[in-house]
Amino acid sequence: MRYNSSMAIPNTRRFFVPPTSLAGDQVLLQDTELAHQLGKVLRLRPGDQVLLLDGQGTACTVTLTDLGKNHVAGRVEARTAAGGEPTTHITLYMALLRAERFEWVLQKATELGVSAIVPVHFSRSLPGDKAEARKLERWRRIVREAAEQSCRGRLPTVAEPLPFAAACAQASESALHLMLWEGDAQALKTVLHSWQKQTTTGAQCSMLNAQCSMLSGPEGGIAPEELTTAAAHGIIPVSLGPRILRAETAPIAALAALLYELE
Amino acid sequence: MRYNSSMAIPNTRRFFVPPTSLAGDQVLLQDTELAHQLGKVLRLRPGDQVLLLDGQGTACTVTLTDLGKNHVAGRVEARTAAGGEPTTHITLYMALLRAERFEWVLQKATELGVSAIVPVHFSRSLPGDKAEARKLERWRRIVREAAEQSCRGRLPTVAEPLPFAAACAQASESALHLMLWEGDAQALKTVLHSWQKQTTTGAQCSMLNAQCSMLSGPEGGIAPEELTTAAAHGIIPVSLGPRILRAETAPIAALAALLYELE
Repeated sequence: MRYNSSMAIPNTRRFFVPPTSLAGDQVLLQDTELAHQLGKVLRLRPGDQVLLLDGQGTACTVTLTDLGKNHVAGRVEARTAAGGEPTTHITLYMALLRAERFEWVLQKATELGVSAIVPVHFSRSLPGDKAEARKLERWRRIVREAAEQSCRGRLPTVAEPLPFAAACAQASESALHLMLWEGDAQALKTVLHSWQKQTTTGAQCSMLNAQCSMLSGPEGGIAPEELTTAAAHGIIPVSLGPRILRAETAPIAALAALLYELE
Repeated sequence: MRYNSSMAIPNTRRFFVPPTSLAGDQVLLQDTELAHQLGKVLRLRPGDQVLLLDGQGTACTVTLTDLGKNHVAGRVEARTAAGGEPTTHITLYMALLRAERFEWVLQKATELGVSAIVPVHFSRSLPGDKAEARKLERWRRIVREAAEQSCRGRLPTVAEPLPFAAACAQASESALHLMLWEGDAQALKTVLHSWQKQTTTGAQCSMLNAQCSMLSGPEGGIAPEELTTAAAHGIIPVSLGPRILRAETAPIAALAALLYELE
């Protein structure tokens, strides 16, 4: 068990809650799942403390005052900056994969520090189905749990799935927009270094709050017409090297490298 | 389906075989599994070509001459360097995790380009059991399949599990030896940059054939006495940033970053 550096609250007691619930000094959450987690799983009692995060960068140390079957009440003792966030905001435009693999990408990308995930229908993605609304709810729960466990300060968003062209249009609005490509393409490192040079004035490299978008394709690969569409939006294809990575491995390796380089 | 750049053989037709079987121009493999894969799954016939790799850096283009239930025969048409290998050789000393997670690390580490994996008993690892010999066989098959699919030129080795102190002693023999640590430690990037400066003579950074070892701990974390043991062996603790990564995520993120930096 690891303790949060600034407060003696274990990281198993970190929870993202709706920001409005933390507006005042008294907190009242009608949340059966959270009430169960605090009362039954962690066996907390009035007087115990938890860390409630608004998902937007604020952490509140809260002393529990009442724990029911369906509600949690508490008192805010302190508000601090939540920490745990990279300075570069990365949006991952992720092809829909087989459920297990896609959910795995959601979890790992959240741990690594992604800011937003946009599921994308590539032409070779698995077709969408009717249960998409319920899936979205499930995806967001996976991300929330991973964010809590990995001590993220902000809660990554999971958007509704977009068609490929719309994803390209949206991605192209960020400062740097990349697409992972296993064919002939510049190395990710080359592209990042030249981008850092371009955006740096003076000796110190400041990537603070830089926005980066990254598209990652499906199991069946990216179709030639999708490469053309991406190029028309100015999206830069980048290579992760000579080895062929699985559809779920590539985005994770790329995120790890991006956050290693830019953090 | 992606074709190998130098030869028109799809990457579903790459197989690692014992190096001795590729010594001469005629190949004869008594291998029921491979015979089944070629004859039944891929439906290949005499005259079709496959790429057989010796796992040590050589790839042979082989024309099949005979396909039985239990054997495969062929003729070597060409020998080439296999490619697909990073210049830095990384050995991952990986804590034994729950089976599914550990096997997942084996697969992903192989895709990313690890050279060797040594399973390690940390004090907080799951205890070893009697089935270790069968497990080792299974682990090596997972690594071989991942190496074939990801177009590796060499086959990463999987060693027999080591106790922690023996792993530290072995790791300390490589040029750079690191241990992932989520407490206060220098950033991986800082350590790599200062190591690159030390080892570079002249302007160009040559990491060719550098040997790097990395220890990665179990779900329950690294025990204080293990930190002490590692320090006594000169192993450098490194941090991957403020977020807490799961035991299976940390080694993969670190490998991605190491190979991004050093390749």
